[in-house]
Amino acid sequence: MKAHAHLPSSRDRLLFTPGPLTTSHAVKAAMLHDAGSWHFEFNAIVAHVRERLLRLAGLSREAGWEVVLLQGSGTFGVEAIFQSCVPPQGKVAVLTNGAYGDRIVQMLKHARIDHAVLRTPEDTPGNPAALEACLAGDPAITHVAAVHCETTTGILNPIEAVGRVTKRHGKVYVVDAMSSFGGMPIDFAACGIDYLVSSSNKCIEGVPGFSFIFGRRALLLASEGWARSLSLDLLGQLKCFEKNGQFRYTPPTHVILAFDQALRELEAEGGVAARSERYRRNHETLLAGMKRLGLKPFLDPAVQSHIITGFHYPSHVAFNFDRFYRALSDRGFIIYPGKLTQVDTFRIGNIGRLFPADLEQLVSAIEAVLREMSAPT
Amino acid sequence: MKAHAHLPSSRDRLLFTPGPLTTSHAVKAAMLHDAGSWHFEFNAIVAHVRERLLRLAGLSREAGWEVVLLQGSGTFGVEAIFQSCVPPQGKVAVLTNGAYGDRIVQMLKHARIDHAVLRTPEDTPGNPAALEACLAGDPAITHVAAVHCETTTGILNPIEAVGRVTKRHGKVYVVDAMSSFGGMPIDFAACGIDYLVSSSNKCIEGVPGFSFIFGRRALLLASEGWARSLSLDLLGQLKCFEKNGQFRYTPPTHVILAFDQALRELEAEGGVAARSERYRRNHETLLAGMKRLGLKPFLDPAVQSHIITGFHYPSHVAFNFDRFYRALSDRGFIIYPGKLTQVDTFRIGNIGRLFPADLEQLVSAIEAVLREMSAPT
Repeated sequence: MKAHAHLPSSRDRLLFTPGPLTTSHAVKAAMLHDAGSWHFEFNAIVAHVRERLLRLAGLSREAGWEVVLLQGSGTFGVEAIFQSCVPPQGKVAVLTNGAYGDRIVQMLKHARIDHAVLRTPEDTPGNPAALEACLAGDPAITHVAAVHCETTTGILNPIEAVGRVTKRHGKVYVVDAMSSFGGMPIDFAACGIDYLVSSSNKCIEGVPGFSFIFGRRALLLASEGWARSLSLDLLGQLKCFEKNGQFRYTPPTHVILAFDQALRELEAEGGVAARSERYRRNHETLLAGMKRLGLKPFLDPAVQSHIITGFHYPSHVAFNFDRFYRALSDRGFIIYPGKLTQVDTFRIGNIGRLFPADLEQLVSAIEAVLREMSAPT
Repeated sequence: MKAHAHLPSSRDRLLFTPGPLTTSHAVKAAMLHDAGSWHFEFNAIVAHVRERLLRLAGLSREAGWEVVLLQGSGTFGVEAIFQSCVPPQGKVAVLTNGAYGDRIVQMLKHARIDHAVLRTPEDTPGNPAALEACLAGDPAITHVAAVHCETTTGILNPIEAVGRVTKRHGKVYVVDAMSSFGGMPIDFAACGIDYLVSSSNKCIEGVPGFSFIFGRRALLLASEGWARSLSLDLLGQLKCFEKNGQFRYTPPTHVILAFDQALRELEAEGGVAARSERYRRNHETLLAGMKRLGLKPFLDPAVQSHIITGFHYPSHVAFNFDRFYRALSDRGFIIYPGKLTQVDTFRIGNIGRLFPADLEQLVSAIEAVLREMSAPT
């Protein structure tokens, strides 16, 4: 069995995945400290992280916003919103066109929360007109949930148009921006967002271990007594941060230290605008290179995000995904494994501590691997 | 604001806390890698960790045992057992004598699971005779929950005697061994344990970020459809490990790499017996030193664990806990802050990468700080 001790310590393989992703050395080196999780110095870092997240989102406490950090993966953060902030008789309309929208539906089923599903095909954005009809016809609906960038395909959903419909009907609007927050500008006011969730290991370029949930303070306070889970109780978590600056339960201290460093690096890069631009260049470098190799993107460019890009299997070679994946891994490039869409595609993430030159190197490696595959075996 | 960047990089303060705790440099250095969370090499590490945890517990798949790793803090792991493995009409008897037993009661309230509370004072172990009477009188009870070492005080509860009563009545037995597993031998068979939970940042001496739950496979399989939360669905998590070797949702990859190293170091130290002995010597070194300073332990030695030790506030000096805590911190020693029990006590953890010499140093620092406090200010 290979253990990580056998990985080269000088350089890891590059991760072309939608997170966990490649982070800077300084982000990882920030984890070389054991912090006391109740110590005042660690509390100060937690407070600082929360302040900077609000600023990064263009929000403020004065304007009625809070951000809650929650242990666990991004999924825990998304579920916490529904487990905590939907009242006992609430009903959620979910727009879905992929695995992450479907996961919200699964969460609601587990929590026995009533819901309506508005499904579009994987290559088709969520439909505000369908939501309009749904909300007009079903007054029981209290919340609307949408996924910003659906990582299944990399499709970008129209969260602003969906938000306008949601707010016109006076519903609470929940946005899963897991893979887009920090890597694309998001206008909370224009979208009418009430809750938005992302996680430590996406476009902020930290390491995995917690999610963060932006929410309107008035809505959070109104959720008293609704939480169906103690660990996922967002208001309980917020109250503890406010009472003594601490996480309610043991935080992933090292992961928080790494995130603090990742936020510094995001600011040093020039904030969301500059990072978004780098990811866009990564995506375009990839697209141009793949076009040269005769590989076609799965999505229409009009609905494609720069976060992750899906490609049809090549038709001109005897393509085997498993061989392809392993050959790229042998060359030091890890792509998103497996195919999740109904057609044969593979996907490549553009986010993380990657630059256009890395995408060029990846394309060269793909070219070499496809050449090997074309040769008689 | 002080940030961790200002902490000395050569040596952090020592953590005399019950976890997160002081870990070895090699454990932290294992986090200097970005692993692909779906990559076959990372999956192999996850499989290896699960195998070694079972072995460490003296369990095997052949004997019907499984271990499930779950993202989040230890509390998430404890709650997952109740959210997933108690049937819709189930009822849980909880023995409590501190914050962690009380937390189980809070979890059951959130999940709207019926329960009975068997409370003893903070300095008194759980009472098997009271459980006997409770189970004899209430046939609706399906599960019994106990905390092994209650970190509130460091008291050790009689999980074997409680288990005998539980099994005589044919109930499912859940043990929260968060702060004891790996640092004390636990005989699963003698105790009649069905589920046991601990976490990455306790006696295995890893960093915080996930919990692990040992469970009988037959019970886990029988829980199909019961889970009230998707993120905390233990059977769902197990099925994913079995299907493709992966976490269902993003794992804290770096924390897992650290834990893999921590398990190696536990084995190198000589396993649970040797670690337990080191912790016992830490505890005794502390006790002897504190006795010399005239400080009295809170608990009767007969019920005191070697995990964490509570002491009464000294009566011979003008004692102020906040000043005491900060003065120790200035000297490089972080103790467990705050007092949680009804009497005035402070607590010192004996676990983590600490040795008797470190406890001697701590006692010297305490002596110096108390001397300062006695002086006129």
